[in-house]
Amino acid sequence: MRKSTGLLLTFMALLSVGSSQAQQANMDAKPPMAMPDMTKILTAPGVFGNFSTYKVRPDYYKLSMAERKGAAAEVVAVVEKYKDKVKAEAYLTRGFEAQSDFFLRIHSYDMAATQAFLVDFRATRFGMNAEVTENLVGMTKDLNYITKDKSPNLNAGLTGATYRDATPRYAFVIPVKKNADWWNLTDEQRLKEMETHTLPTLANLVNVKRKLYHSTGLDDTDFITYFETADLGAFNNLMLALAKVPENKYHVRWGSPTVLGTIQSFDSVVNTLSMGR
Amino acid sequence: MRKSTGLLLTFMALLSVGSSQAQQANMDAKPPMAMPDMTKILTAPGVFGNFSTYKVRPDYYKLSMAERKGAAAEVVAVVEKYKDKVKAEAYLTRGFEAQSDFFLRIHSYDMAATQAFLVDFRATRFGMNAEVTENLVGMTKDLNYITKDKSPNLNAGLTGATYRDATPRYAFVIPVKKNADWWNLTDEQRLKEMETHTLPTLANLVNVKRKLYHSTGLDDTDFITYFETADLGAFNNLMLALAKVPENKYHVRWGSPTVLGTIQSFDSVVNTLSMGR
Amino acid sequence: MRKSTGLLLTFMALLSVGSSQAQQANMDAKPPMAMPDMTKILTAPGVFGNFSTYKVRPDYYKLSMAERKGAAAEVVAVVEKYKDKVKAEAYLTRGFEAQSDFFLRIHSYDMAATQAFLVDFRATRFGMNAEVTENLVGMTKDLNYITKDKSPNLNAGLTGATYRDATPRYAFVIPVKKNADWWNLTDEQRLKEMETHTLPTLANLVNVKRKLYHSTGLDDTDFITYFETADLGAFNNLMLALAKVPENKYHVRWGSPTVLGTIQSFDSVVNTLSMGR
Amino acid sequence: MRKSTGLLLTFMALLSVGSSQAQQANMDAKPPMAMPDMTKILTAPGVFGNFSTYKVRPDYYKLSMAERKGAAAEVVAVVEKYKDKVKAEAYLTRGFEAQSDFFLRIHSYDMAATQAFLVDFRATRFGMNAEVTENLVGMTKDLNYITKDKSPNLNAGLTGATYRDATPRYAFVIPVKKNADWWNLTDEQRLKEMETHTLPTLANLVNVKRKLYHSTGLDDTDFITYFETADLGAFNNLMLALAKVPENKYHVRWGSPTVLGTIQSFDSVVNTLSMGR
Amino acid sequence: MRKSTGLLLTFMALLSVGSSQAQQANMDAKPPMAMPDMTKILTAPGVFGNFSTYKVRPDYYKLSMAERKGAAAEVVAVVEKYKDKVKAEAYLTRGFEAQSDFFLRIHSYDMAATQAFLVDFRATRFGMNAEVTENLVGMTKDLNYITKDKSPNLNAGLTGATYRDATPRYAFVIPVKKNADWWNLTDEQRLKEMETHTLPTLANLVNVKRKLYHSTGLDDTDFITYFETADLGAFNNLMLALAKVPENKYHVRWGSPTVLGTIQSFDSVVNTLSMGR
Repeated sequence: MRKSTGLLLTFMALLSVGSSQAQQANMDAKPPMAMPDMTKILTAPGVFGNFSTYKVRPDYYKLSMAERKGAAAEVVAVVEKYKDKVKAEAYLTRGFEAQSDFFLRIHSYDMAATQAFLVDFRATRFGMNAEVTENLVGMTKDLNYITKDKSPNLNAGLTGATYRDATPRYAFVIPVKKNADWWNLTDEQRLKEMETHTLPTLANLVNVKRKLYHSTGLDDTDFITYFETADLGAFNNLMLALAKVPENKYHVRWGSPTVLGTIQSFDSVVNTLSMGR
Repeated sequence: MRKSTGLLLTFMALLSVGSSQAQQANMDAKPPMAMPDMTKILTAPGVFGNFSTYKVRPDYYKLSMAERKGAAAEVVAVVEKYKDKVKAEAYLTRGFEAQSDFFLRIHSYDMAATQAFLVDFRATRFGMNAEVTENLVGMTKDLNYITKDKSPNLNAGLTGATYRDATPRYAFVIPVKKNADWWNLTDEQRLKEMETHTLPTLANLVNVKRKLYHSTGLDDTDFITYFETADLGAFNNLMLALAKVPENKYHVRWGSPTVLGTIQSFDSVVNTLSMGR
Repeated sequence: MRKSTGLLLTFMALLSVGSSQAQQANMDAKPPMAMPDMTKILTAPGVFGNFSTYKVRPDYYKLSMAERKGAAAEVVAVVEKYKDKVKAEAYLTRGFEAQSDFFLRIHSYDMAATQAFLVDFRATRFGMNAEVTENLVGMTKDLNYITKDKSPNLNAGLTGATYRDATPRYAFVIPVKKNADWWNLTDEQRLKEMETHTLPTLANLVNVKRKLYHSTGLDDTDFITYFETADLGAFNNLMLALAKVPENKYHVRWGSPTVLGTIQSFDSVVNTLSMGR
Repeated sequence: MRKSTGLLLTFMALLSVGSSQAQQANMDAKPPMAMPDMTKILTAPGVFGNFSTYKVRPDYYKLSMAERKGAAAEVVAVVEKYKDKVKAEAYLTRGFEAQSDFFLRIHSYDMAATQAFLVDFRATRFGMNAEVTENLVGMTKDLNYITKDKSPNLNAGLTGATYRDATPRYAFVIPVKKNADWWNLTDEQRLKEMETHTLPTLANLVNVKRKLYHSTGLDDTDFITYFETADLGAFNNLMLALAKVPENKYHVRWGSPTVLGTIQSFDSVVNTLSMGR
Repeated sequence: MRKSTGLLLTFMALLSVGSSQAQQANMDAKPPMAMPDMTKILTAPGVFGNFSTYKVRPDYYKLSMAERKGAAAEVVAVVEKYKDKVKAEAYLTRGFEAQSDFFLRIHSYDMAATQAFLVDFRATRFGMNAEVTENLVGMTKDLNYITKDKSPNLNAGLTGATYRDATPRYAFVIPVKKNADWWNLTDEQRLKEMETHTLPTLANLVNVKRKLYHSTGLDDTDFITYFETADLGAFNNLMLALAKVPENKYHVRWGSPTVLGTIQSFDSVVNTLSMGR
């Protein structure tokens, strides 16, 4: 019988590291019970991001126009009720997507708060007539690869590049899943691929804003990538650049769905989708 | 014509082993006809686990609020009726999943008892308006690989590691299916991979509870893995660690779906999903 | 221009064999126009097997309880009407499967008789509210590989092994499709793989009954495998043994769906699914 | 900069060939504006074949029995109206297929005539309650590979073999798509594979009628294969023979769906599916 | 720690190029705020193409014939309202496709204008009863590979070849997605493949019109290819030629769906689909 003493010694070493890592994640995920700091929710690590797409049911249009007119106010009241715990944003996808009419991006420091918000949203007249067609959850983390320590020059490039275009009108949500070969690379090998990935994209940070959510195990994807832009041609060029690096060979999911929406207020999304005879 | 005498001799040897194994499984699966011991149902081998996800039909919300208010009591009565045969737990997934609003985890020593319970659940006002969207069945078994005999140190690590975090609020159900190459490895090769798999996960037993169900042939998956945690960041780290071991290369299904829910009482799940105008 | 004279000569030889094989299949498939022998329908070659799964539509439960109470008698009358041509069996899957509430296994010597039966079943009050979710057709044939001639010892093992457990309560339907590499093996190579496949399963014939249907070209599967057991643990062990032989590497479909039901009378299935407010 | 002069010279040569081929296809596809010759529509090249499968909506059975009784006459009137332009045939699949209750095979010399017919069919009481679940389009062409010139002996075999069995009762529609490796073989290599494919099937021409439609680019398949038989066992043997030749390794789609129906009149199909309370 | 100074220098060079490219795309995508030039919308680069397929809901046919008669005028009014910003075309797919009854092709210089048009279309009586079943977005760009500089002779061939057949009656929409291996080829390698791809298709420009839209990152496809023809046989030949070049080996999506429709006015499409009792 083969004994795994050596392995376990390694484990003991890993355990102490592992525990402190776990505690770190813990810290990120559990802010002090005091009021969450909503001003940092779009930049802090340890924040939960929730993306859900919806299709309005035909039954909604059987409600009278008068009933539909009150729908937006009801939804906005839910957003207002949760504003100290949950940051909620709405996007119109009708005309761009077959599987949805709109999508929501929800941030909170506590995934259960996000659930409470979405449960309340679904209990509104509008939400009750919205069929959920996709739902992806993830969380923000500190940079993994292109850090000051590991890749200082590219990190400076990332930090220095700032968006200089008109106010973005369009947003994209694109899930990314990598295969087992990717995850079985060494950290150093993955760092090298990420550098090759990062370099050709720096030029596009002028025209495209990006945000990354980690999802391994939390959902059937490894990452949720979110983009905003005013320039769809520049976004297409950015994605072509990413298609042309070796990292692309490790993708088992990149999109599916690719969700494109226009950035709008909740009020505008609900009113637009309430039109019709 | 090639004769298979040698093969058959081998078979005769296998048969005696096979039979005793079959008898063993038999023993596990058929407890004495006396009352099943419900206190051990979450720890004993030979217990059947049944995971079903549901989406509430829009028609449910056409019932009056008064009718929906009585729904939870009706469901709780079914749970109570079966409490000596079936352990039933409920989880809220609305806001996390597109394909479901809630899921059930049912344990019993007799799969037919589970069916009887679910048939009764479906005959309640709430159950009749719940569309089943996924259903996975499996059974518990004794440890296969990391046993005291085969891998004593890791077994000690597994036995010694205990959950030390806050009461879990979240549960995950993740099916796992392995390819033919995995199953065609020798027992020794699979043991080695499972050791490599186990080592980096020990650190996370502090933050994540786990339970394993075997499903080969019982359903279109080999395993159903179930997790509880209070710390979603720690869970994400655990799953990343599992992605980085060679065993991951043998996966043909890992998730699809990954189901995330909050741990709640039946009463709470039904009442929450009964809200709305 | 390359000429295929040699090929055609080979063909002429094949043709005579082919024709007699075709005639044989013909004989199997077309019993004398006299009354079909229903006592041999579960053991004879040349019998058509038809497996269909159904989900009861929500509309069914809008019928009054009184109307639903009459449903079983109507279905049983159809079964009775066809009893000299069609052997029909029913299984309850609710609580085990997301895609179905029940399934039917239909045998006949004439596929058109099966169609006539199912058309009549669908015209009953219950059948009209049953959505077909899967339908697989196949036919029985004489043993191909593990015959007395080709593999006498294993054949003896197969013939000698008999079911010795309690009356089966559970049935499984599992379609199997093999890839082009399998079908391009020589007969001798496939025989060898089937021997390796058969050996570890003999032990389980004590606990699991099996029946095989051939479907290549008749449906999108090569085989439909059907099992009955009283011991789900033994069945899981049998399927694990089959996963561990090289033949598994040739599978492109093994399950998808795996359908598990409890063995019941038509009366019981219809009445059970007619419950509810 | 690399110049492609040589390539273009080759192109000039190809162009003249290409054009004449295109003109030829043109000729096939556009018969003189005079009355199309309906007597040759099942044998001529350049004919369009359209296969559509349908599932009767539950709403159909909410029409009164009296209304459903008039449905067949209305459908038959549409068939009659188009009889000089469109050959329409109907097949009953209920009891064999989950995705359909019946399918139509439509032939015309002008795809737009087929569309006009199907639009009119869908405007009948029956057609309005039929959900299209699959639709495949293709066209007939002269033999490509097993021609008198390229493979004279096999061509003679094909020409000589004639159907000698009872009137077919069953029809199959099976789409076939081949991978890029197949299409990148040389013509000579593909001819060789087709000869190997054809040889073992000659024996079955006695029991199975076949017809081939070409679909590359017209639909998501390369071919639609259509079969008629009175002997399902012989058909299964034919398909097994085709599975066992190397050409099978190039298939990315073979079936999916495999559609099996009984050959019936429109009147019979509509009346059969109109039964029920 | 490996430093990426060299990489960053390369990046600085790329950045200047990248920025000017991005600006170029910018220019294309953002026409001067003056009236868009609708006369060039089918030939200019930087134009957005939107393809959406629809299935008419059964509920539409529950409207009275009188109500359905007014539907076309309402739709035509929306087309008219947007005629200075959006070019909208309609195609009838009923009878050819299972997933749709019609599709729309919309061009604009501003994707948000396309969305506004489609939102208004969906708010008409007809649009409200049309279920979107597919939606693909892309944009036009200048030629990438077969340019005057890179491939002068083929470019001349492309420019010189003009459509000489009857007015097209049929249109095809076929999405194309390429794998990571394709995108990781060098520009020179891709140019070579595109030359090999272009050569055999020149002959078909006489019978088939083509238009290309770029979609990488904008949707789950890399390209949307659009074709018009009067000659379906010639189109089939063109697609066979494209199947036979090595580029085909890099396809992960080619079709799925392949959408075939007849070219019609909005008025005709709506009226045709409004028929029925």
